[in-house]
Amino acid sequence: MSKLWGGRFTGVTDTLMSQFQDSIYFDVRLWQADITGSIAYAKALARAGVISDEESKTLQQGLAQVQAEFAEKRFELKTGDEDIHTAVERRLTEIVGEVGGKLHTGRSRNDQIATDLRLWLKAEIEQLRRHLVGAQWAIISKAEEYVDVILPGYTHLQQAQPVRFSHWLLSFGWMLERDKARLDDLTRRVDVMPLGSGAMAGNPMGIDRLFLADELGFATISANSMDGVSDRDYLIEFLSWASILQVHLSRLAEDLIIYSSQEFNFVELADAYSTGSSIMPQKKNPDSMELIRGKTGRVIGSLVGLLTTLKGLPSTYNKDLQEDKESVFDTVDTLTMTLQISRAVIQTLTVNDGIIYDKMDSTMLATELANYLSAKGMPFREAHHIVGQVVQKAIDLDQPLNLIPVAVYQQFSDLFEHDMYKVLTFHRAADRHTSSGGTGKQVVRDQLDALKLLTEFDEE
Amino acid sequence: MSKLWGGRFTGVTDTLMSQFQDSIYFDVRLWQADITGSIAYAKALARAGVISDEESKTLQQGLAQVQAEFAEKRFELKTGDEDIHTAVERRLTEIVGEVGGKLHTGRSRNDQIATDLRLWLKAEIEQLRRHLVGAQWAIISKAEEYVDVILPGYTHLQQAQPVRFSHWLLSFGWMLERDKARLDDLTRRVDVMPLGSGAMAGNPMGIDRLFLADELGFATISANSMDGVSDRDYLIEFLSWASILQVHLSRLAEDLIIYSSQEFNFVELADAYSTGSSIMPQKKNPDSMELIRGKTGRVIGSLVGLLTTLKGLPSTYNKDLQEDKESVFDTVDTLTMTLQISRAVIQTLTVNDGIIYDKMDSTMLATELANYLSAKGMPFREAHHIVGQVVQKAIDLDQPLNLIPVAVYQQFSDLFEHDMYKVLTFHRAADRHTSSGGTGKQVVRDQLDALKLLTEFDEE
Amino acid sequence: MSKLWGGRFTGVTDTLMSQFQDSIYFDVRLWQADITGSIAYAKALARAGVISDEESKTLQQGLAQVQAEFAEKRFELKTGDEDIHTAVERRLTEIVGEVGGKLHTGRSRNDQIATDLRLWLKAEIEQLRRHLVGAQWAIISKAEEYVDVILPGYTHLQQAQPVRFSHWLLSFGWMLERDKARLDDLTRRVDVMPLGSGAMAGNPMGIDRLFLADELGFATISANSMDGVSDRDYLIEFLSWASILQVHLSRLAEDLIIYSSQEFNFVELADAYSTGSSIMPQKKNPDSMELIRGKTGRVIGSLVGLLTTLKGLPSTYNKDLQEDKESVFDTVDTLTMTLQISRAVIQTLTVNDGIIYDKMDSTMLATELANYLSAKGMPFREAHHIVGQVVQKAIDLDQPLNLIPVAVYQQFSDLFEHDMYKVLTFHRAADRHTSSGGTGKQVVRDQLDALKLLTEFDEE
Amino acid sequence: MSKLWGGRFTGVTDTLMSQFQDSIYFDVRLWQADITGSIAYAKALARAGVISDEESKTLQQGLAQVQAEFAEKRFELKTGDEDIHTAVERRLTEIVGEVGGKLHTGRSRNDQIATDLRLWLKAEIEQLRRHLVGAQWAIISKAEEYVDVILPGYTHLQQAQPVRFSHWLLSFGWMLERDKARLDDLTRRVDVMPLGSGAMAGNPMGIDRLFLADELGFATISANSMDGVSDRDYLIEFLSWASILQVHLSRLAEDLIIYSSQEFNFVELADAYSTGSSIMPQKKNPDSMELIRGKTGRVIGSLVGLLTTLKGLPSTYNKDLQEDKESVFDTVDTLTMTLQISRAVIQTLTVNDGIIYDKMDSTMLATELANYLSAKGMPFREAHHIVGQVVQKAIDLDQPLNLIPVAVYQQFSDLFEHDMYKVLTFHRAADRHTSSGGTGKQVVRDQLDALKLLTEFDEE
Repeated sequence: MSKLWGGRFTGVTDTLMSQFQDSIYFDVRLWQADITGSIAYAKALARAGVISDEESKTLQQGLAQVQAEFAEKRFELKTGDEDIHTAVERRLTEIVGEVGGKLHTGRSRNDQIATDLRLWLKAEIEQLRRHLVGAQWAIISKAEEYVDVILPGYTHLQQAQPVRFSHWLLSFGWMLERDKARLDDLTRRVDVMPLGSGAMAGNPMGIDRLFLADELGFATISANSMDGVSDRDYLIEFLSWASILQVHLSRLAEDLIIYSSQEFNFVELADAYSTGSSIMPQKKNPDSMELIRGKTGRVIGSLVGLLTTLKGLPSTYNKDLQEDKESVFDTVDTLTMTLQISRAVIQTLTVNDGIIYDKMDSTMLATELANYLSAKGMPFREAHHIVGQVVQKAIDLDQPLNLIPVAVYQQFSDLFEHDMYKVLTFHRAADRHTSSGGTGKQVVRDQLDALKLLTEFDEE
Repeated sequence: MSKLWGGRFTGVTDTLMSQFQDSIYFDVRLWQADITGSIAYAKALARAGVISDEESKTLQQGLAQVQAEFAEKRFELKTGDEDIHTAVERRLTEIVGEVGGKLHTGRSRNDQIATDLRLWLKAEIEQLRRHLVGAQWAIISKAEEYVDVILPGYTHLQQAQPVRFSHWLLSFGWMLERDKARLDDLTRRVDVMPLGSGAMAGNPMGIDRLFLADELGFATISANSMDGVSDRDYLIEFLSWASILQVHLSRLAEDLIIYSSQEFNFVELADAYSTGSSIMPQKKNPDSMELIRGKTGRVIGSLVGLLTTLKGLPSTYNKDLQEDKESVFDTVDTLTMTLQISRAVIQTLTVNDGIIYDKMDSTMLATELANYLSAKGMPFREAHHIVGQVVQKAIDLDQPLNLIPVAVYQQFSDLFEHDMYKVLTFHRAADRHTSSGGTGKQVVRDQLDALKLLTEFDEE
Repeated sequence: MSKLWGGRFTGVTDTLMSQFQDSIYFDVRLWQADITGSIAYAKALARAGVISDEESKTLQQGLAQVQAEFAEKRFELKTGDEDIHTAVERRLTEIVGEVGGKLHTGRSRNDQIATDLRLWLKAEIEQLRRHLVGAQWAIISKAEEYVDVILPGYTHLQQAQPVRFSHWLLSFGWMLERDKARLDDLTRRVDVMPLGSGAMAGNPMGIDRLFLADELGFATISANSMDGVSDRDYLIEFLSWASILQVHLSRLAEDLIIYSSQEFNFVELADAYSTGSSIMPQKKNPDSMELIRGKTGRVIGSLVGLLTTLKGLPSTYNKDLQEDKESVFDTVDTLTMTLQISRAVIQTLTVNDGIIYDKMDSTMLATELANYLSAKGMPFREAHHIVGQVVQKAIDLDQPLNLIPVAVYQQFSDLFEHDMYKVLTFHRAADRHTSSGGTGKQVVRDQLDALKLLTEFDEE
Repeated sequence: MSKLWGGRFTGVTDTLMSQFQDSIYFDVRLWQADITGSIAYAKALARAGVISDEESKTLQQGLAQVQAEFAEKRFELKTGDEDIHTAVERRLTEIVGEVGGKLHTGRSRNDQIATDLRLWLKAEIEQLRRHLVGAQWAIISKAEEYVDVILPGYTHLQQAQPVRFSHWLLSFGWMLERDKARLDDLTRRVDVMPLGSGAMAGNPMGIDRLFLADELGFATISANSMDGVSDRDYLIEFLSWASILQVHLSRLAEDLIIYSSQEFNFVELADAYSTGSSIMPQKKNPDSMELIRGKTGRVIGSLVGLLTTLKGLPSTYNKDLQEDKESVFDTVDTLTMTLQISRAVIQTLTVNDGIIYDKMDSTMLATELANYLSAKGMPFREAHHIVGQVVQKAIDLDQPLNLIPVAVYQQFSDLFEHDMYKVLTFHRAADRHTSSGGTGKQVVRDQLDALKLLTEFDEE
């Protein structure tokens, strides 16, 4: 069979050009969505009286056969199959004969590909959501297991205040919770059917688009055919979602890479998610986390690529839009891996709580001292300044704050009394943060309960 | 007053370093949000018994005075005012004395700036939403005015099928409708209060965060203090939203730039939104549209900038986050302009309907001919091929399709009969697209009604 | 054989993790460079006395055999071949036995992959340079062919001043000339050998790196081993080069897409580089140009991806760097196509010079009129203003400038006399731009000669 | 004075539009370049006989006066000064009268702005180059000072092999050296004069462009006027250069941030480049380095912004190009700071060599053990595997490698003998890397000499 569009052409397509423009090498991945869409369209054509019920049946049966060939990996591509639509229609016509040529009545590859991609993405989003919730569960379990372990909380990668290990880990659980909410939001905009937009003017065959949407499980239909064939917003939204999620994972990765350095040694990744060196026998590298961090560039790059492609494009379909698929495919594959790997790394992580405790610096309690003075009536700003000087003294003396005699403290303020030593423990300091969202034990438990509730609901 | 954090420092900050790290030059824009947040915090401190009611009153009155100074542009920055928080606290202490130093008890600049930025953005989003709806209204009015004008519909910038001018213009109305929906979605994630997260461990003063949220008009509070101080997702979402919107406007701009070339001459921009040349006296350039198209790069660049800054950052607050503001400020300003300019350009656009009609190519009716054959039972695929040959013939003869004798048509297929000429009019072709979302008059009217309904609701 | 690095590991790598981290699926493309590098290293080991000459011979012969297997597509990947280095060493050891294990002495995969990638890219750059010069030649030939055709020159997509078609086309020749210069510049930074940097501390086997560089044809060696293993600057430079080049081609594409619209109709693309529509029989779309324009996003996305991956990475090798290859491979493939397609499209382009002439607007001569007045002593600024009013008059009268009586002109200025009509021809206007780089015939010929000289030199 | 281009316009520019399109708020920064260019053009006009020598003198003197007003900050912007060109010409005409209107003869704002920007950037590049060399000198001095300090060399942020502190620091010196080479390369492409390209057709006044280039100190002139007015390659090259440089600094920043954590404590930043916390009195944060790391996003964002703006733009000047300036200005300012801050931070850095030594893990010597076995004839691959097991044993025994009895070693291989302890020292291990570019003392000294030579040459 000649090309779908060859009638008015006298010249032949250059081989190089075919290679340049054929998309079958990547869009073959959409076979299921493409055939599902065609079966629905065959039904709709009959409903609209464009073809007979019998013709429709024939088309549906033929398409089912093509579907089976793909499912059983028996489908053979042939020269001239420039894209998945051409390949399917070519094979359909081999099977059912000339009536195959009626399937495309009133339909264009423009609305067809737009529909295929949305159908496919809807299914992928479901999987990704499951992996995302899986990663949240790993976080929740680990956080419960280590709820009493205290960790230095960092700002600027400097020890800041003692926090619960669980509080730190849960912070990523909440990032993922936002990612989930965003995914649900964008899914509503994926779930819109463009089929029936034709090349861009709409459908002149009286096709019932709501029937089609119902058949294909779309929540709604696009409202304007010119917009319908060229709307790729949902892909940008998806890539933007993926970029934010990947940035979250990159931050988790960064923490874990630093925490598993010999100098920190707070955690150890399982062998299963580490690798060694071809030259240095002692090395155990957190490769899994480094790859996740590194792949953030790839995902952001894909977002930029599509935004740039769309910028300044004239209305409706332009061939530039063919560039929308590969980066989305790659991003789906990347996140499918990074979410699962993140889950597994968390599940199998060893926490060296003893070592963590040894590395905690007493100056993390300085804020507690300032609050102590402030509670005695000194303005916080002044208390902060005085404790700053105390810390400097402690550094000069090379002593932890709790081992410095009260007399020394009193050189800086009379308000210091013996009861101040009570504030100088890490657990107590953590537990004093009792406002909602803080690192105190009870509020961390509340936090855990809240996240579990949100996440359990999702598992149903 | 010395720096907020100087207690433990012996060395002096390098002047170059001050210049490098001070943010007052841009974050002064947040003065209103900053003071509003502080007034609420002063109330909360009293509620928690940390300061007396009288102290709280004093602080609130002092803050009101600072606010007035800003509002009346009387506020004077001083050396050492490194950021808006420092500037306000410095001035407050000048006014109310030492009690000013109590305001910061349990609060950190980390949760303070995170709160300021969200308060500020919420207000800006409201304005932007108004401008967006304004642009939609311009589209709706213009579409109604020209509902009967037929325009060549393009794919690949080649005349494809006749469509209504209104259908083309409304396609942008629907893009903006999605932008509105996205904005509403993301607003829910802006509307979360981090105040009470402290430096990152939470608040140890028993502050009531729900009270604070209520005072400040936030819908909810952040659930984890470590996440609370470093969550910038909502800014990425905002920049991503802005990028998509700007891409939409860039596509409208591209169409209008092309349509107002001498060769197309479909539309003319008002003088008010065009400019001339310093050397070529005849020039009237669609500068407004070119700037909108060009500024798309700027907005996408800001999105990339923030994503890159956040990639691989360790947990909680790092100074890198200071880079979150300028690009968001710039994007708010850019869109405030591009939305208003787009509205005005559409409102004042002249449509040269006579010229448009003259430029329409009869080959745009080829699909109608194929549908004609297809309605007579020929498979669409075959009909497409035959009409392709007819078009080639028309090009060779240099004749429009409707002036070619039926005898010539019949050389290609017996199915062509005299009634075929009836399908060869642009209006009829457009009107045949009666499925929902198509370019037929009735469905375009339905589309207009639907968009008006959605948009009117928003104006309330 | 077990993994290259498994000695200290007790746990087993998770299958998912293998899938996540294995790079053999894409880095197999580097087989030739990898084996070439290994052969040189086998020689260097013998030279340094680390292995015997006989052992070196055995290794070299074994490697030659592996090379042959790849070249003849007989090489079989096995489970555990995690990357190209492992695959080659595994097979080598199968062939030559235990001595294969000596090849890696003092070498790390870190310096090995850095070397492979540079060797490979050097070869690809040579090909790309050839394609680039090919595109320049197509431009030169076409420009010579149509040197006398006059075209509207546009600014803001509004007709501005008449220019030669060749002048327009040559502007892209000069963009490519800069691309060539940039490519030559960056090649010097690709042409640096990191081999001998080991894991990052250098080589402890007394290897002679200059000998290695000589063997492998590198111009020089890296100066610091820590930098050597993690320098990916040359890849960013390459991607940045590719982005600029692709932006150039996107601008050519935009012009050609607009110029081949029915409304312009200045040029026609050969059928070989156009495609049709599945639904609209009349369509002939400039797909080749649209794809080139669209792929610009892809290339820019790759640049952003790598920059983002590298941002904030700790010193020397981190696994994140594995993400450097796929985007570079993809970019090489993309440009290999876009350059060849651009060349072919230009070579086969039809120029509709008659139609172009018909579409030229007399107002493009307004600047000539202003210059006319200015030559008579009127300040240009005033002349510009007066001619602007004349143009407005011409628009009101709906007459071209050359058909408006001199009396009408004289209403605006006494300086207008009959000789003014002499300036009102397009050819004359173009030819008056005689300063170097202008669109006058002689200087365009000079320009052609200059570009030919630069390009011929390259073909040698 | 009315607008430069208002002749043919009847409608008035909307105030909003003026605000949208006026560039004076940022391009005023180009005043010096703009006036310098105009003075040269006034000379060239006289040389070409377009104006008299006297007129030229008048113009030059008037321009000198405007220049003085700017230099002395006496210049006053007025309403209608839409850009720097308009502002200067307006003021010039106020000073010299009507002859001011002759300056623009044959010149367009298109070639004028293109020239201004290049003149300005050339001067900025000189400054940036100086700052870059300054940073290199800080590296060289510090490296010489600490040439004998041994540091853990990391790959994957895991201790890998001992290296010299100087070797680590010099790795950044070489990155900067490449940045310098790249800057020199791109400067050649900045140093090209577009003046005389007019609006885009060239100059019709017989202007001598080589004379102009000579006057303005440009190395050469652009070869094609259409390309000349819209070539922004050099800005992308500059932004790409800046992005790579900033990525280098971000990697240095990341190392220093990690190295100055309490857990590493290898280095301490001077107080002058650190800041504290408003709530935690003990904090000393490496803000300078975090800002540098964070600003990498900003610079990359600017690169993306401009690439996106240029993508798919029609030939020659389009208003979109006005978006080329702000991001370049911002990038110049950013790098001016980041280079100077980097220099100062390195100069004032404290190296805690005692602490570094204490933190070095004996397993970093594992490669030495493998090389030991390999020197005794065991294939490296086998030696690597055996030493991997030894390391696992050492971890189980919780003993450093040099304290484990030889008998234990011999359980793994007979080749281990007492002399093996000699290889187990960090200095010796470092010094064994004697190949060029390695971390051995002599080759590091060679490296220092080489970099000094390259850098001294530049200081001349």
